[in-house]
Amino acid sequence: MSHDQLVAIDQELRSGGGGQAALADQRAGYEQFCARPAEPDVTVTDVLLGGVPALRVEPPTTTAGTLLHLHGGGYVIGSARSGLALAGALARRAGASAHSLGYRLAPEHPFPAAVHDGLAAYRALLDAGWTADRIALTGDSAGAGLAIATLVAARDAGLPQPAAVVAMSPWVDLTLTGDTLRTHEAMDAIFDAADIAGYAALYLGDADPAHPAASPLLADLRGLPPLLVQVGTNEVLLDDATRLVARAAAAHVDVTLEVVAGAPHVFQNFAGRLDEADRALDRAGRFLADHLGR
Amino acid sequence: MSHDQLVAIDQELRSGGGGQAALADQRAGYEQFCARPAEPDVTVTDVLLGGVPALRVEPPTTTAGTLLHLHGGGYVIGSARSGLALAGALARRAGASAHSLGYRLAPEHPFPAAVHDGLAAYRALLDAGWTADRIALTGDSAGAGLAIATLVAARDAGLPQPAAVVAMSPWVDLTLTGDTLRTHEAMDAIFDAADIAGYAALYLGDADPAHPAASPLLADLRGLPPLLVQVGTNEVLLDDATRLVARAAAAHVDVTLEVVAGAPHVFQNFAGRLDEADRALDRAGRFLADHLGR
Repeated sequence: MSHDQLVAIDQELRSGGGGQAALADQRAGYEQFCARPAEPDVTVTDVLLGGVPALRVEPPTTTAGTLLHLHGGGYVIGSARSGLALAGALARRAGASAHSLGYRLAPEHPFPAAVHDGLAAYRALLDAGWTADRIALTGDSAGAGLAIATLVAARDAGLPQPAAVVAMSPWVDLTLTGDTLRTHEAMDAIFDAADIAGYAALYLGDADPAHPAASPLLADLRGLPPLLVQVGTNEVLLDDATRLVARAAAAHVDVTLEVVAGAPHVFQNFAGRLDEADRALDRAGRFLADHLGR
Repeated sequence: MSHDQLVAIDQELRSGGGGQAALADQRAGYEQFCARPAEPDVTVTDVLLGGVPALRVEPPTTTAGTLLHLHGGGYVIGSARSGLALAGALARRAGASAHSLGYRLAPEHPFPAAVHDGLAAYRALLDAGWTADRIALTGDSAGAGLAIATLVAARDAGLPQPAAVVAMSPWVDLTLTGDTLRTHEAMDAIFDAADIAGYAALYLGDADPAHPAASPLLADLRGLPPLLVQVGTNEVLLDDATRLVARAAAAHVDVTLEVVAGAPHVFQNFAGRLDEADRALDRAGRFLADHLGR
């Protein structure tokens, strides 16, 4: 029963330390949360993309293209390894390989280091012979915001846009103006507004939160490829998703938004335990397969 | 080629009289625009739903349930007959029958006559033995706004919600505060902001444009069923769609939004001539079939 699944996951999430723990503990806890048993038929290889470490995931059938996946973690947590599970789940469903990128984290490497790494990795895939129409960007949370920022940077650098982009629970407004940061605080089992503000402060350092590469909600989004956004309603970041979609639509981007009632932040992490997670990954995989190599 | 199809349709729409013609001419022109050759295997029957005239459309296979379809036309134009083509296209794809409702039009019957008729028709379907889980509401433009207003009225009257609702290019804000009313005026081949204001004035009479039954964007949307919104980017009403979606999501409704770049208002009317139209109707049909009788 999906309702029971959602309640169990909500209780489990609320029992964790969340944003109040020390950063080192948050990083270790997130690696553990994202760890999955290795899938026997998937090959994982250490690679460098434009000098940035990444893990290449290759499911058995990878004819469609490749994904550049940017993990979540508020720009301060996570790794190529923590991104493997979602990258692999999307890659398998899309019939593609994936590259889970270990972009540099704040506060050691504040903004715009992550954007530089995203752009360098995308450029490296193009240089390696992947045509843009066989690449898609994917990301969750801060990684989804970074995916949008990377696309804008690629456009401004004169690079072609990839075939598509999938943004799961995107964090795109570091000026923290979404209404749901306040109105949905009680129902978000993972973050409160103070957690989000804390991550923003660590990532930005002295930078302007309204810089469009830090807050891609505020960027010119013209020319971006077809965008799929997935979000749950139990998220303080819900308004980041709905406002990103409105901005992209006004900029004449093809957009699909899927809002799942009662689901938490990056609910796709609960695939295998939450029916909505598996269904959302299935839809994202079809979206990617439909656009790659068109 | 889809781009060529969009350009041809844009030029054709711009050659029409649009909102500047006399109301009688607009009504006649819209009937002509919506007229389709009769499909031989579809049965169309005159019926009354709660005293409101309707046309029942029955494709050969109708096991899933029935649609209550509310036609577009700014609350002042259109009829059960003008709604037949979209109602039939959705019904056939969903494996359902449909009822295209001839709700009363303004200025002869201003707000809230249309909402009363929508609610009376929905209640009549329930009274006729359709269980709520085998009914879906569908509508385009003003009819999509009326569908949302009808759902809110049904909830407030203590009636169960139907299985789903499909809103094509919904007009839900009669206070006319969407940015795209201005920013997208040049690219909208059908309406400018003055046209929309004119329809609002005729529908509202002396009523408050911010009444939630007139502007369901401002209504409490809690408890509404899964909502699919489809919209084109070449619409002054684009922001009505994206803001409806944001409001519904914040109210914990399951929402899917599909934004089609370069497409005009209710682009589904161009099925058979525009690939995006056929694909959007296919997706809407699957959405309805997935939810009816679950």
